[in-house]
Amino acid sequence: MAQRNKPVTRIAHHTNDAIFVRGENLVDDLIGHISFTDMIFLHLMGRRPTSAQTKILDAVLVTLMEHGMTPSAIAARMTYMGAPEALQGAVAAGLLGVGSQFIGTMEQAAALIDQVRGAGDGATDEAREIATHHRENRLHVPGFGHHLHRPDDPRTPRLFEVAEQAGVNGGHIAALRALSNAVDAVYERHITINATGSVAAVLGEAAIPIEIMRGIAVISRAAGLVGHVHEERRTPAGRVMWDVAAEAIPYQDNDS
Amino acid sequence: MAQRNKPVTRIAHHTNDAIFVRGENLVDDLIGHISFTDMIFLHLMGRRPTSAQTKILDAVLVTLMEHGMTPSAIAARMTYMGAPEALQGAVAAGLLGVGSQFIGTMEQAAALIDQVRGAGDGATDEAREIATHHRENRLHVPGFGHHLHRPDDPRTPRLFEVAEQAGVNGGHIAALRALSNAVDAVYERHITINATGSVAAVLGEAAIPIEIMRGIAVISRAAGLVGHVHEERRTPAGRVMWDVAAEAIPYQDNDS
Amino acid sequence: MAQRNKPVTRIAHHTNDAIFVRGENLVDDLIGHISFTDMIFLHLMGRRPTSAQTKILDAVLVTLMEHGMTPSAIAARMTYMGAPEALQGAVAAGLLGVGSQFIGTMEQAAALIDQVRGAGDGATDEAREIATHHRENRLHVPGFGHHLHRPDDPRTPRLFEVAEQAGVNGGHIAALRALSNAVDAVYERHITINATGSVAAVLGEAAIPIEIMRGIAVISRAAGLVGHVHEERRTPAGRVMWDVAAEAIPYQDNDS
Amino acid sequence: MAQRNKPVTRIAHHTNDAIFVRGENLVDDLIGHISFTDMIFLHLMGRRPTSAQTKILDAVLVTLMEHGMTPSAIAARMTYMGAPEALQGAVAAGLLGVGSQFIGTMEQAAALIDQVRGAGDGATDEAREIATHHRENRLHVPGFGHHLHRPDDPRTPRLFEVAEQAGVNGGHIAALRALSNAVDAVYERHITINATGSVAAVLGEAAIPIEIMRGIAVISRAAGLVGHVHEERRTPAGRVMWDVAAEAIPYQDNDS
Repeated sequence: MAQRNKPVTRIAHHTNDAIFVRGENLVDDLIGHISFTDMIFLHLMGRRPTSAQTKILDAVLVTLMEHGMTPSAIAARMTYMGAPEALQGAVAAGLLGVGSQFIGTMEQAAALIDQVRGAGDGATDEAREIATHHRENRLHVPGFGHHLHRPDDPRTPRLFEVAEQAGVNGGHIAALRALSNAVDAVYERHITINATGSVAAVLGEAAIPIEIMRGIAVISRAAGLVGHVHEERRTPAGRVMWDVAAEAIPYQDNDS
Repeated sequence: MAQRNKPVTRIAHHTNDAIFVRGENLVDDLIGHISFTDMIFLHLMGRRPTSAQTKILDAVLVTLMEHGMTPSAIAARMTYMGAPEALQGAVAAGLLGVGSQFIGTMEQAAALIDQVRGAGDGATDEAREIATHHRENRLHVPGFGHHLHRPDDPRTPRLFEVAEQAGVNGGHIAALRALSNAVDAVYERHITINATGSVAAVLGEAAIPIEIMRGIAVISRAAGLVGHVHEERRTPAGRVMWDVAAEAIPYQDNDS
Repeated sequence: MAQRNKPVTRIAHHTNDAIFVRGENLVDDLIGHISFTDMIFLHLMGRRPTSAQTKILDAVLVTLMEHGMTPSAIAARMTYMGAPEALQGAVAAGLLGVGSQFIGTMEQAAALIDQVRGAGDGATDEAREIATHHRENRLHVPGFGHHLHRPDDPRTPRLFEVAEQAGVNGGHIAALRALSNAVDAVYERHITINATGSVAAVLGEAAIPIEIMRGIAVISRAAGLVGHVHEERRTPAGRVMWDVAAEAIPYQDNDS
Repeated sequence: MAQRNKPVTRIAHHTNDAIFVRGENLVDDLIGHISFTDMIFLHLMGRRPTSAQTKILDAVLVTLMEHGMTPSAIAARMTYMGAPEALQGAVAAGLLGVGSQFIGTMEQAAALIDQVRGAGDGATDEAREIATHHRENRLHVPGFGHHLHRPDDPRTPRLFEVAEQAGVNGGHIAALRALSNAVDAVYERHITINATGSVAAVLGEAAIPIEIMRGIAVISRAAGLVGHVHEERRTPAGRVMWDVAAEAIPYQDNDS
């Protein structure tokens, strides 16, 4: 039996003839047999996904890939301007912004969902307590609100639909809906469940642990950033963005 | 008509109600409808893949994801040890090594394949000339040779099989095979087509331009690195790797 | 009067003839007139350092630059192996590990020092309370302890000496000494003030805010990492470190 | 005698009592005794700098630190917005752009300087040949030209002055001046020696090898980027830069 925390790896090994990932033969069982999405699940979770888990993971990876000219995309394009010979550096620069401000919110939303789910029959009360606590302390409720998509973030019902049609019923979506009802009641207005919230719920339905959620976003964003760098190479926009960004921030001396 | 290089983006836009990526409605047409792999193709290429292109891209992304405890994986784990709060930083550190030494080889192999393909009826001669040039100048032929997998890298025939069963016939695989014959003849021994070479060929068959190939590897490796960081969190191996690595490199003063 | 948080920059501006940094003429006043260390202080703090502040900042930057074959240095060297064309990527990879595990400790130590200082006449009691709290909750006291340098980290008395000879007397060193006495008393054994702790104290004496301390470490480590990458280029050690690190972590399947 | 490329390190070692960097005792000989600049030289070159080398290295590090709201600074600020908990990530993102476009130019300028110097008595002819070759092939001459600072980049004469007052006379500045004369003659107009060119020359005078020059820029820029991130924390400008940058790049569909 393996000792806890003994330094081993369970990911991959090879012989002269064969390569194995998570115990499966890369050439015989994986290449040409499973999708990239299923391979991601297998790598991260150590087992193949169910059909429902594949559908959810695909939906989430598709949802998170692209958000237009975000700070991440701008960082990647700025970096590409200075070092076009190192595409990996431009993508890495963009990924470095996938931190607490967006993903932290997803992780916190997932934690609230777990809290409501864990309350069992007391879920409604738990949800109300959470909403009240946030309102009273003037805290933003993670997973709720969107500056643009009002009254509702269109991604949320679609993600729920995909997950529910796939047949999952782990209570994560139900818990988030309970929280949503409580939020609307306590704040006395409708606040949308945003993509951060709904992604947290459906990843929960796919049995993805909270601690992996940031990684899912990183994978998806890596793809989106490759796309931005590729566009920057073909039709450069970085120079113009640099100019307007620099102009927008005037110099002011210390005494002003 | 758009002026060449005019600073626009063709990737994404949105309204209050809807988000569009590459002209398709994210919620109505993409989430729940297409796989992550197809979304990657759509984002990068501006059009949906054919069924054959999907199969090839999946096969390549599955092939490149994991190579065991590579320098990239070690860099990611070392970084995670110092900053476990920033998973994105550990993944970024690992990606920064996806540069000329591995991917450059893939890009160079793709360029040679294009060269042989472009020679038309003279492909055999062109291949022989390339092989001869490399041998005479003691250059490594990009896409050939493997320190471990002998006589043959098992990934190569599998990637060819997947592409050929998918029905592509763009001449990239044929060109690489012609080059392989020439290499064996000129070097007077069998040198395997490695995964770098076969990936270059099948991505060519999928109409992926050379300049995007590094990006495909970056996306796939991002997923593998998330897996390594996740394992490092659960069962830390970094401390032991640090200790043995540091011990293996003794100090020597300048005068020795 | 400037509005709070109004988007301006106070760092640099230029005309056709001249470049200004923090209000000083780069060519007339700075190049050839001030040291890199003073320029760092000027850039970060918006004013030139006193002679004492220069001495402390130099001492800290010299102290933090190099720690041998650390995880950061290994990450940089691993990255360099894959992308030797992008030295900046290797250095960036190494810097990404300058996170909570080392620097977070410095920031926490600085916060404890401020807490003790803020207690005025009650400093001794405050220090004792902190030490007791940490011991009772089995928490590591930030800035204390070293796995190798026993009984004392030699850098600590030297940093104190440099600061004291420079003539500072802001109470940060005194507060850390008070905390050290409390720690020894509460833990009933001598626990060294490590470099993390003493750096926090002397940077405090130099009026460097806690929030900048991590940045000081990043600057110093950047220099050390450039040195490691340069050595890796001249006399490669990465391949050997990779081999021993990979060998040290055997594969184990999931069922074991 | 050490075998060439034997995997050893010559940088640092330690005992229980002492830490040594490049053979010098960190506590007894370095902390409080040498400046950060001298420590950088010692770490990179394995020996202490002469007084002239210190002056030049200080001047270069001061020169390169800050260039206003550059793509690097924007990338760092964009990254900070997403992950303010990881300052090291924001700095790393900014450093990733320190690549071929700026630094490559410095390295190429240094190579041209070496070429002219190596021509000895034929330096004037060599310089003229280089200038002619660039003009005829419509190539930009590395180290020459500036979009803003005309007729002359003010940093260049100052860097020469600092180096010459320090007493160096290695021929690098003379070679660059010879090249400058040739460029002006061949292009039939005055083209300024820019900071990239003059930095390459004075670093050459300080006996810094070309391969280290990029590292010097990385160290200096790391400091400047810490300053930008610090300002971003205090008075955020990123949001405004994001908004104007995104607005400046309109969406256009593929058919336009």
